[in-house]
Amino acid sequence: MLKLFYALGSCSLASHIALEEAGADYEAVAISTKAGDQRKPEYLAINPKGRVPALVTDRGVLTETPAILAYVAQSYPDARLAPLDDPFAFAEAQAFNSYLCATVHVAHAHKHRGYRWADDPAALAEMTRKVPETEAACFQLIEDQLFKAPWVMGEAYSVCDGYLFALAGWLEGDGIDVRRFPKVHEHSERMRERPAVRKVLAEEAV
Amino acid sequence: MLKLFYALGSCSLASHIALEEAGADYEAVAISTKAGDQRKPEYLAINPKGRVPALVTDRGVLTETPAILAYVAQSYPDARLAPLDDPFAFAEAQAFNSYLCATVHVAHAHKHRGYRWADDPAALAEMTRKVPETEAACFQLIEDQLFKAPWVMGEAYSVCDGYLFALAGWLEGDGIDVRRFPKVHEHSERMRERPAVRKVLAEEAV
Repeated sequence: MLKLFYALGSCSLASHIALEEAGADYEAVAISTKAGDQRKPEYLAINPKGRVPALVTDRGVLTETPAILAYVAQSYPDARLAPLDDPFAFAEAQAFNSYLCATVHVAHAHKHRGYRWADDPAALAEMTRKVPETEAACFQLIEDQLFKAPWVMGEAYSVCDGYLFALAGWLEGDGIDVRRFPKVHEHSERMRERPAVRKVLAEEAV
Repeated sequence: MLKLFYALGSCSLASHIALEEAGADYEAVAISTKAGDQRKPEYLAINPKGRVPALVTDRGVLTETPAILAYVAQSYPDARLAPLDDPFAFAEAQAFNSYLCATVHVAHAHKHRGYRWADDPAALAEMTRKVPETEAACFQLIEDQLFKAPWVMGEAYSVCDGYLFALAGWLEGDGIDVRRFPKVHEHSERMRERPAVRKVLAEEAV
């Protein structure tokens, strides 16, 4: 059985939703990043990066959201969570997920995790100050260029949708009105109606 | 025919090497990031993100190195540039590429591109100061945990190798002695002997 290590409010929500949508046999285990669980020896033995998500499989541990999402989609092809038989369409989905991972998530991380890239408190405050600007610019690009509608990749729901939903959930807390991005906003509302998403949100809220 | 937009000294080297290793029919077009070509209207029409690489295909434009690398591997299966028939092994390769994209590249980008996340000159200087520390920590994790040897993913050469080679090429300029990471250093030396890599480096040097 698969075991997903996740943290409430983190990007691991995307992997959690993907596993649920896939109908996978899995266990979800919460760790507390506030309590620093991700830096404890027992967790570093699972994921030496000290981050979530980590997906424990019978072949070993997978990390990095885009990789886990592709793995879930390929492992449960009947769930049709990615365009597996079309290298170009698959690459478009991968490109979307890569943008969320390397640009959108990174923009957000400068709010509370600026210590990754600077030590001086004034620099950390300056990074935090700019987050609403950089993060909003990312979502504007998604709204204007990347989102195909009705789902991220067009007619077919995919693992990209859960990932966008997870990161769009950060907007309000980062001082950005999600209604500036009508497609993203409506998408988040629609995601909340999916049975798999409801189930995952209820489980993570416990 | 595929058309790759690249910039000298950038991560686009990974996609360039992958296309050459694949035996793809492609044209490589250099743009100058120093001259700001990536922000000119004619380039933004190709890639609204204003970044390299961008791969123009007959289906549309692909961006994001991990997505382009997976696309090349899947489009030229005979070149055996990724474990295409094994979702777990494929995800391991994707996870490695995602780490390079979202953590290693981002660490490096704080040297000259801190303006993405802050405006204050003192904050930019503080980010630049910390780059050798953060980037070296990334390569230590690669050296100790991620690199399987003799190639990144083990016995088989893959698209991950060109990506690691591209980013390892930044170490010296960032003030980090690559010999601190013997596996990575030896890997870079061995990469330079591959005919495809020699050809690409010669072309980019023109």
